[in-house]
Amino acid sequence: MTFCLFFQVLNCEYAVRGEIVTLAQKLQQDLQANPGSHPFDEILYCNIGNPQSLGQYPITFFREVLALCDHPTLLDKSDSHGLFSSDSIERAWRILDQIPGRATGAYSHSQGIKGLRDTIASGIEARDGFPADPNDIFLTDGASPGVHMMMQLLIRSENDGILCPIPQYPLYSASITLHGGKLVPYYLNEETGWGLEIPELKKQLEDAKSKGINLRALVVINPGNPTGQVLPKENQQEIVKFCKEEGLVLLADEVYQENIYVPEKKFHSFKKVSRSMGYGENDISVVSFQSVSKGYYGECGKRGGYFEVTGFSSEVREQIYKMASVNLCSNVSGQILASLVMSPPEVGDDSYESYFAEKDEILTSMARRAKTLEEAFNKLEGVTCNKAEGAMYLFPRIQLPNKAIESAKAENSVPDAFYCKQLLQATGIVFVPGSGFGQVPGTWHFRCTILPQEEKIPAIITRLTKFHENFMDQFHD
Amino acid sequence: MTFCLFFQVLNCEYAVRGEIVTLAQKLQQDLQANPGSHPFDEILYCNIGNPQSLGQYPITFFREVLALCDHPTLLDKSDSHGLFSSDSIERAWRILDQIPGRATGAYSHSQGIKGLRDTIASGIEARDGFPADPNDIFLTDGASPGVHMMMQLLIRSENDGILCPIPQYPLYSASITLHGGKLVPYYLNEETGWGLEIPELKKQLEDAKSKGINLRALVVINPGNPTGQVLPKENQQEIVKFCKEEGLVLLADEVYQENIYVPEKKFHSFKKVSRSMGYGENDISVVSFQSVSKGYYGECGKRGGYFEVTGFSSEVREQIYKMASVNLCSNVSGQILASLVMSPPEVGDDSYESYFAEKDEILTSMARRAKTLEEAFNKLEGVTCNKAEGAMYLFPRIQLPNKAIESAKAENSVPDAFYCKQLLQATGIVFVPGSGFGQVPGTWHFRCTILPQEEKIPAIITRLTKFHENFMDQFHD
Repeated sequence: MTFCLFFQVLNCEYAVRGEIVTLAQKLQQDLQANPGSHPFDEILYCNIGNPQSLGQYPITFFREVLALCDHPTLLDKSDSHGLFSSDSIERAWRILDQIPGRATGAYSHSQGIKGLRDTIASGIEARDGFPADPNDIFLTDGASPGVHMMMQLLIRSENDGILCPIPQYPLYSASITLHGGKLVPYYLNEETGWGLEIPELKKQLEDAKSKGINLRALVVINPGNPTGQVLPKENQQEIVKFCKEEGLVLLADEVYQENIYVPEKKFHSFKKVSRSMGYGENDISVVSFQSVSKGYYGECGKRGGYFEVTGFSSEVREQIYKMASVNLCSNVSGQILASLVMSPPEVGDDSYESYFAEKDEILTSMARRAKTLEEAFNKLEGVTCNKAEGAMYLFPRIQLPNKAIESAKAENSVPDAFYCKQLLQATGIVFVPGSGFGQVPGTWHFRCTILPQEEKIPAIITRLTKFHENFMDQFHD
Repeated sequence: MTFCLFFQVLNCEYAVRGEIVTLAQKLQQDLQANPGSHPFDEILYCNIGNPQSLGQYPITFFREVLALCDHPTLLDKSDSHGLFSSDSIERAWRILDQIPGRATGAYSHSQGIKGLRDTIASGIEARDGFPADPNDIFLTDGASPGVHMMMQLLIRSENDGILCPIPQYPLYSASITLHGGKLVPYYLNEETGWGLEIPELKKQLEDAKSKGINLRALVVINPGNPTGQVLPKENQQEIVKFCKEEGLVLLADEVYQENIYVPEKKFHSFKKVSRSMGYGENDISVVSFQSVSKGYYGECGKRGGYFEVTGFSSEVREQIYKMASVNLCSNVSGQILASLVMSPPEVGDDSYESYFAEKDEILTSMARRAKTLEEAFNKLEGVTCNKAEGAMYLFPRIQLPNKAIESAKAENSVPDAFYCKQLLQATGIVFVPGSGFGQVPGTWHFRCTILPQEEKIPAIITRLTKFHENFMDQFHD
């Protein structure tokens, strides 16, 4: 039958799962079917922030609690006490007591289980030093559905615009496209370590206004994806002031709040920054997105997360609630996990030492991997790479030779995608082309996660370096 | 700040979580704060198909497997063998082997883990006797996101229409509204046990066409929600023929396929029916929605489900894949559960007897509850109720006295909502007004689930009967 699809869907692209990844999956199948069919023996996925797919173990305490909540019969059996830490057992009891009827298999309140939202609100208060209201929290199946929900609410017509960083995580461009709005780009300054500069924001805002676009919100990703920068507090204050003055909703993607690798930077939530400036509920609308997929825990497959909304009228809150209720509720295991990451074991708890050791090992290893990869990229001819202060990515810039750019065009490829495709076919390494995130026209980048296990990093660097030398030789001007 | 919301969100209503339920939650808080503050001591939720919230236990085998997959370390410990059935341990190993890297905390393939889709495809083949392709299966966080995805794909403009039963489950009206399309109603015939009659379909189709609406798809809910009928196979054949002739996508909501209570009826999937008629991939587009929330298992909080798409071009399939990839993947526990409900323990497995006993007890009890409630409704003055052949609901019709209708209007209430509100305030029983599902204008209904535990049914009937007598006395013409 003939079939027409509406244009938003056709226009929506999702680079981190796009063409290169599809090719990688095909090559992996080749390797399984015919070992030796390619000049590498495995695919090295550096395309997506998916730590456990690359061998990172889950945090034991979190999984103990999840298993006990999934099968509470275990709590009644004395044999279980040899298999689980005592605080995981206590925590599971506490969580079950927070769930009406202890029914982990029941639809919950559309915003998420109230007791779990209480725990999350306490975690936010402990983090920020400012009050948090459990009624402001909406639990979601990961951060993405929360972003979609806000875009659906904010975008009324094709004249509504959302200010988004470039480069950006393609969830934003995809969601704005799907909901029929306009992405108004503001460029991060690569020269100043992907700085978010207010004059650029103002320039883009005025430009959009002059085209008749109604600006609704500003997206900030901090720590940055794909760019890895951590915003200084003073910069965050300027951003808050800008949103306040322009009446923009501040959509703060804060899913990497636990991933910071440099001692001179610290995470500050935008809500904390705005409250520190004396702005309250009536002054500014801030939405903070959090996820169980990132942090040191990296529980992507569990699809847990929340967003906290402050500074919205009760009328708008009711609309958000109604949107949430159309999908009934987010998955309860993900809800439990969201409460756990916001209230992990504390000093004195049975699990604390092993928990802390697991967390510390993951984060210090990520910091080492970020540094090692950054240094390796900076040694490549024509490549410069800012450091990853946070998040899970490096976003090096590559000066592609003209011949490479022409060869790419000859096969209808974007030049950075051409580079990534050649890299994949020669080495099995999967990077995402910068064009999937947006970049200053005429510049080329790629995104590389810092997530391959540490023992694989030397091989990645060796293979990449060799490939890069050959590539530059081949396409030398 | 002032805030405008786009009209689709404002227009979208969700009765099963609407005004009456909000009132019930308020009354429940009252009762907790001030016991004795209302003429009942508990709220009896009959508003939503959420079995475990009302005390139904999860199926042990499913939860054993989930706990083992959540915390696979248990599999290595000999103590676990005393705590888990041997086939749950085997199954957990098998599932972990199907997950790349055994990483239950990793994002999966956007359609869901391939090995689990293989299992589901085998389950569909065993059910239908026709081949099923794992690449046709998209795992989702419950059935609702799958329905939204299809609506987003099908609806291109406000002139695109979707044929929906009236009464219908409000997911459909909400989703069509959110995506900016037109719900084209077809009425089920209450006189013939909520019959789905082809002349009515044709009439509504012609009427919509004459108004310039492009019809895209037909929604059929079988077994019916809120109406509880199970379609006869011959009727399904007529429906398939109608879709084939009119070039409509058949959206088959088959989430109650395990919930059938009368020996003379059997579930036939629409794919099976169309294949039995000799229609293949090139003849008709069928989408079948399934969920872990319904059936005898009722795992609503786990948010698992899938849809199977057949008869779409590869171009459209790619668009569906792209949509799925924007949210990365559905939750892995829900994916595992979806594979389990499509491949439960078999004769000879360690768990089989206890599994079968649990399943049988739930389904036979539901059948008894359906019958008892149906009989009770039919004894009420002015109430007639078709039997629930399947699903989880009864949808009785009530002839409201004129005085009641006038009193409702005087307080700006819809008459059936007025009845349900009075019932709630007098008895604590929560029904959903028929107006939330749609009904023939001038008729009034309410939906009641068959899910309260069996020992509570007599009290529900006694309280309802007493309330109803008083209500009819009070508003007698």
